[in-house]
Amino acid sequence: MSKYKELKRSCYEANMELRAQGLVVYTFGNVSEVDRSKGHFAIKPSGIPYKDLHAEDMVIVDFDNNIIEGDLRPSSDTKTHAWLYRNWSKIGGIAHTHATFSVSWAQAQKDIPIYGTTHADHLTKDIPCVQCMSDHLIRGDYEHNTGIQITECFEERSLDYQEVSMILVGNHGPFTWGKDANAAVYHSKILEVIAEMAYRTLQINPEAVPLKDSLIQKHYERKHGKDAYYGQ
Amino acid sequence: MSKYKELKRSCYEANMELRAQGLVVYTFGNVSEVDRSKGHFAIKPSGIPYKDLHAEDMVIVDFDNNIIEGDLRPSSDTKTHAWLYRNWSKIGGIAHTHATFSVSWAQAQKDIPIYGTTHADHLTKDIPCVQCMSDHLIRGDYEHNTGIQITECFEERSLDYQEVSMILVGNHGPFTWGKDANAAVYHSKILEVIAEMAYRTLQINPEAVPLKDSLIQKHYERKHGKDAYYGQ
Amino acid sequence: MSKYKELKRSCYEANMELRAQGLVVYTFGNVSEVDRSKGHFAIKPSGIPYKDLHAEDMVIVDFDNNIIEGDLRPSSDTKTHAWLYRNWSKIGGIAHTHATFSVSWAQAQKDIPIYGTTHADHLTKDIPCVQCMSDHLIRGDYEHNTGIQITECFEERSLDYQEVSMILVGNHGPFTWGKDANAAVYHSKILEVIAEMAYRTLQINPEAVPLKDSLIQKHYERKHGKDAYYGQ
Amino acid sequence: MSKYKELKRSCYEANMELRAQGLVVYTFGNVSEVDRSKGHFAIKPSGIPYKDLHAEDMVIVDFDNNIIEGDLRPSSDTKTHAWLYRNWSKIGGIAHTHATFSVSWAQAQKDIPIYGTTHADHLTKDIPCVQCMSDHLIRGDYEHNTGIQITECFEERSLDYQEVSMILVGNHGPFTWGKDANAAVYHSKILEVIAEMAYRTLQINPEAVPLKDSLIQKHYERKHGKDAYYGQ
Repeated sequence: MSKYKELKRSCYEANMELRAQGLVVYTFGNVSEVDRSKGHFAIKPSGIPYKDLHAEDMVIVDFDNNIIEGDLRPSSDTKTHAWLYRNWSKIGGIAHTHATFSVSWAQAQKDIPIYGTTHADHLTKDIPCVQCMSDHLIRGDYEHNTGIQITECFEERSLDYQEVSMILVGNHGPFTWGKDANAAVYHSKILEVIAEMAYRTLQINPEAVPLKDSLIQKHYERKHGKDAYYGQ
Repeated sequence: MSKYKELKRSCYEANMELRAQGLVVYTFGNVSEVDRSKGHFAIKPSGIPYKDLHAEDMVIVDFDNNIIEGDLRPSSDTKTHAWLYRNWSKIGGIAHTHATFSVSWAQAQKDIPIYGTTHADHLTKDIPCVQCMSDHLIRGDYEHNTGIQITECFEERSLDYQEVSMILVGNHGPFTWGKDANAAVYHSKILEVIAEMAYRTLQINPEAVPLKDSLIQKHYERKHGKDAYYGQ
Repeated sequence: MSKYKELKRSCYEANMELRAQGLVVYTFGNVSEVDRSKGHFAIKPSGIPYKDLHAEDMVIVDFDNNIIEGDLRPSSDTKTHAWLYRNWSKIGGIAHTHATFSVSWAQAQKDIPIYGTTHADHLTKDIPCVQCMSDHLIRGDYEHNTGIQITECFEERSLDYQEVSMILVGNHGPFTWGKDANAAVYHSKILEVIAEMAYRTLQINPEAVPLKDSLIQKHYERKHGKDAYYGQ
Repeated sequence: MSKYKELKRSCYEANMELRAQGLVVYTFGNVSEVDRSKGHFAIKPSGIPYKDLHAEDMVIVDFDNNIIEGDLRPSSDTKTHAWLYRNWSKIGGIAHTHATFSVSWAQAQKDIPIYGTTHADHLTKDIPCVQCMSDHLIRGDYEHNTGIQITECFEERSLDYQEVSMILVGNHGPFTWGKDANAAVYHSKILEVIAEMAYRTLQINPEAVPLKDSLIQKHYERKHGKDAYYGQ
């Protein structure tokens, strides 16, 4: 029996949750989960419809993109996942979706402004939209370079990946992460909810102003600060 | 057996209805119901996903925010509920959601104009959006101050909380209330329906004009007036 | 046993279909069906939630609004139905909904322009939105006057109620009709589909132009003309 | 037993999938599948609601629009299908829907610009919207002329029907195709997803710019090129 059985199951369930939450159709999107002790991660195989997916189909890959276990080809976005796991040591799961509102902001090439407490309950910053990479990088090792593009964006903007657990890749779509695959999918859904609310806010009031800083801090701190009183 | 068993069950069912009506995801939102004879109310525990919620998890709290019964921490919005129960003696239930269109109007910091009879069937006024409180109040006893913010808004605008059973807290989201928890949830859904219709009305006709006064009165009175002929 | 049993059942099923098609929530809306041989119609009782409705609850009313059979109060819109049955002898069922896009056009006080063949498959005219009635009429026999408002609008615009089986009452919402209750509900859904498509067409292209006349005629005639070849 | 039994079943299932994917209501839309060895295709009968449809109801037609087998009248769009099968020898299935966002772009008479990788994963061109045909052609053999209109549009724009498997017929709606009926329906859904994202992109940013060419090529090639590495 595979020593990755539990990791595959967890990764599989998170992938299926993408569909249950309405964030993907057909073969779109992918979720991975890492086993830090082994330095390997499980990821959805490429191009398999969710309805035909099984836990044992998950592919085990290392951070150099070598297949460790599995008969199927891993997601075409595997190199992006590997780069993020290698560089951000505190994340345990990554998700990529084609959710409608998230993708629409990415296609519009706009950061999502922080308009309300639903957003501030989860992060204190605008959700970054990183611009398209250069033609040179696209024609090179594209998925690897997408990973670099994401980590560089966080460095340039001085963002903390443990607070801001989501990004929009311009003209493409969202990547999100968290302590495990399930948390990554949770952040994909939260991002979609925030993206829809920001979209509709702008339709009602194109001059809408961001949330004031005191309220951003209040909502974030009551849930994530050292004196947090949200949750059990 | 708890003497609050029935109150908890009623409160629990109203919380679950929030999700069934599509007004919340994950742990978002909360509903409470009061027992006026005891001066205590039941409220959703903080940060528990709806799918994991049980009737016995409801927390019993008094109007000074003391926990009377329950092992879990009550909703982080508990002080807002306590303030409203203390000040508005005729309400029996309160609901708070993150419903998409309601939140979007709150984020846009706009009252919802009364554009049609769906709105006038329920209330004769624009749905108020109270502006953000001062930094001083946010950094103070925030959830208590949110309660004050709501009752002050009603005083300033001379609104009757028994007619206008809903408010948008600017940049945050809706609070609604009613004779019991179920009625509060009903008003959350009605608010969301009105919010969506007003949103789409404005997209079709940015110059849309509010409903004329005679029609507002007609629809409200036929349902709620002394000679009402709507319903049984 | 009631001699109206079959009429009530048919009316009840059409009412339930309103909810199944997503055109109403809670107690919103109503459908009626007439028995021309008796001069009586069955209609939903007022203010009963769809989930609590039974076939035997349908109320039998004549064209003068007298209750012929039933223990419940009929829909508050009963007089509008009665007027339409009295004046338009070829209709067998009437539906009234609060469907989102239909109501939004009514609140925007705009006719729905004929932008495409989905519209022309059903009618060759813009869907009329009749303006609010005068204060005098609102304060009078309101629901009766709503009926008059509808038939007068059709006369003024020279519309044929057998072709144009739908209207928007300004600031209020849609009324639709057909050969029976089921057809009336079908037209409520078709109206909502057309209303959504027209809404989105305008968002994409505010300068969108109506369908050309030859295409309107082609699509309408192939489905409803004397040489129709759509359907069996 | 009919020698078309398997073809009818496949065609039937694809028609039902139109409804399962939310692309049609009532009797709207139609799907066909061809048997190239026989030169015949199966198509949905005209005007039958999906809920009443059976596999044996599918009608078998040749490329000259003669009914080969079946008691029902075939879809009113049959001649459009026949023309496309006759002229485009590599397609095995065709679908026509009234999906909301696809129709709205058709009614707006706009090509759908290629704004993101979701689009580029499937085709490298804007999705063409062919303008209304002349009155003369509409009044002639309309559905046959719709087929001509589609193939001429592809010739004029030098589009490859094996790459661009979808078109919007102006003021009408989408036609899509593929290697079989199932693939045609898949493309109808993909078109609707792309149409919704492009719609929302424009609402967020009316100045949104198309995807750069290097990224279009990258995404299309990694899925469909000779060195494709998407899928198994």
